[in-house]
Amino acid sequence: MTPAFPIEPSFELLAVFIGALSGGLAAVRKQFDVFGVLVLAWATGLGGGVLRDVLIGATPPVGVADWRLLAAACLGGVVMYLFHPRLERARRMIAVLDAGALALFTVAGTIKGAELGAGPVAAVCVGLLTGVGGGVLRDLLTGEVPAVLHQRELYAVPALAGAGLTSVLWSTQTLSLASGVVAVALVFGLRIVALRFRIQAPGPWNGVTWGRGRGSGRMEP
Amino acid sequence: MTPAFPIEPSFELLAVFIGALSGGLAAVRKQFDVFGVLVLAWATGLGGGVLRDVLIGATPPVGVADWRLLAAACLGGVVMYLFHPRLERARRMIAVLDAGALALFTVAGTIKGAELGAGPVAAVCVGLLTGVGGGVLRDLLTGEVPAVLHQRELYAVPALAGAGLTSVLWSTQTLSLASGVVAVALVFGLRIVALRFRIQAPGPWNGVTWGRGRGSGRMEP
Amino acid sequence: MTPAFPIEPSFELLAVFIGALSGGLAAVRKQFDVFGVLVLAWATGLGGGVLRDVLIGATPPVGVADWRLLAAACLGGVVMYLFHPRLERARRMIAVLDAGALALFTVAGTIKGAELGAGPVAAVCVGLLTGVGGGVLRDLLTGEVPAVLHQRELYAVPALAGAGLTSVLWSTQTLSLASGVVAVALVFGLRIVALRFRIQAPGPWNGVTWGRGRGSGRMEP
Repeated sequence: MTPAFPIEPSFELLAVFIGALSGGLAAVRKQFDVFGVLVLAWATGLGGGVLRDVLIGATPPVGVADWRLLAAACLGGVVMYLFHPRLERARRMIAVLDAGALALFTVAGTIKGAELGAGPVAAVCVGLLTGVGGGVLRDLLTGEVPAVLHQRELYAVPALAGAGLTSVLWSTQTLSLASGVVAVALVFGLRIVALRFRIQAPGPWNGVTWGRGRGSGRMEP
Repeated sequence: MTPAFPIEPSFELLAVFIGALSGGLAAVRKQFDVFGVLVLAWATGLGGGVLRDVLIGATPPVGVADWRLLAAACLGGVVMYLFHPRLERARRMIAVLDAGALALFTVAGTIKGAELGAGPVAAVCVGLLTGVGGGVLRDLLTGEVPAVLHQRELYAVPALAGAGLTSVLWSTQTLSLASGVVAVALVFGLRIVALRFRIQAPGPWNGVTWGRGRGSGRMEP
Repeated sequence: MTPAFPIEPSFELLAVFIGALSGGLAAVRKQFDVFGVLVLAWATGLGGGVLRDVLIGATPPVGVADWRLLAAACLGGVVMYLFHPRLERARRMIAVLDAGALALFTVAGTIKGAELGAGPVAAVCVGLLTGVGGGVLRDLLTGEVPAVLHQRELYAVPALAGAGLTSVLWSTQTLSLASGVVAVALVFGLRIVALRFRIQAPGPWNGVTWGRGRGSGRMEP
């Protein structure tokens, strides 16, 4: 069940840790108790991978079976529980790290799906879910509408691009360490560009004003 | 993994498309961006089938693996994103189409469960989940309490009746094209009758007023 | 698929029934219709086991396949729908019964995970999920933030202790009827002690007041 794509295990642990920081922060803001912080950290850091493994039949998912991943997620939760006032100030850095986690999760998830015979389309879907699933779980468990669905800054689009490229590389048997790194860099780069220049997805199409241009109906984030 | 029940593939695509319209509409109303509309369309059109496939171990689910189904769901999302002001006026027609989608999904889901050895009781459960699961996912992802749980107009009861009939037909080896069509017509007919005459499920039993009949405690939809 | 741990089937049915009462009560409070009450009863009584079975690949889950479990869940829903004004007064008794259900679910879930080759860490995770998963589903379906995440009274910690002990017993091949009963009693006892003495998990760490001790920022339950 080890991924063929040579993600350095330490990189994967880092990605889980960063996801867990994000989940822990959401829990701390909702005034959850320490156990709630740990569960949110687990769900955010490992939830995407659990969804992926359930969808491709790789049970039990590594997100409940691999103690190192569980330890990384718990560590993220504990760190955020203890130090959140300082970490909130480091938000910009966390956003950059999170872009890296998104990139690693998406590409590794796509490859794992393809390896388990999911077919190119399914591999893209499970890769995308691996990348964004943790954040969706985090938002559902804290009673929020998933940010990825309405926060217009591009988040899923970079993941989709990277999952698509990875799936094409796999199908054409041109996936190597070098081309895999390109896919990771694509996701990371697109996400950073979207953050830096505040590139937004097309918002609600306010059909009521068709041709009359009343702007007030649009929700700006 | 093709269902033995001869649902014309075009019918199945139509059912997914209609479910996707319903999800797209919910997303548009919540002012989601274009990506959120597509995800909601996917979750509503294909979510019930994904739940079914995960429960019966048919991984990866067709809802992530079959590009035609994915295309039908995306098309539904795009159409609703672009034309929702006009489509909202055609709501009555969408409700009728949705009854057809419910019927097709439920009967096909029950058969797929039975084919994969789920047993008669489990087949009814997964058939019911296939029919109503997409709508439940749609409501959870938009931060709503699932309509099927509190909107008293009969929605799950027709699906339950159809799944039960289909499972009996399967167990008694009397499932044929003709009897399968009867099961689909049963779900569709019951749902249309419920819509037309506003037949409602028994609402909350207001025990506090036991024998005194104070009606104000009841929630009317 | 029968668990090796000799939970008397009548005990298991009782645990499902109690979980279903809890779900039915939540649905009645939200003014759900009778079908919504039944679905909530099902999700709360059997949802934890369904999550467990999906995670360990034991499909279809017993929570959709075993008619006795389904009947116990429906019975719980019907009883709560009809008699909730009287049952709300018996809340203390229900809390005690619920502690018993938590204990049985957790230990039995851990053992089932271990039996299906989940490894000691995964067994603890799925045991914990079996115990608390039903309540999480109940809260998500009624639009609430899961109580287990922010209601500071210890609920998951007893389950975690029991799952851990059970997994150790399994790994060291010292799991017997006697030691299994000890694990069940551990969960039940810790939960009852937490209820009786209102023992709470550490709440939000209000880092802003670091060293100045402003208490008002803390949320008391």
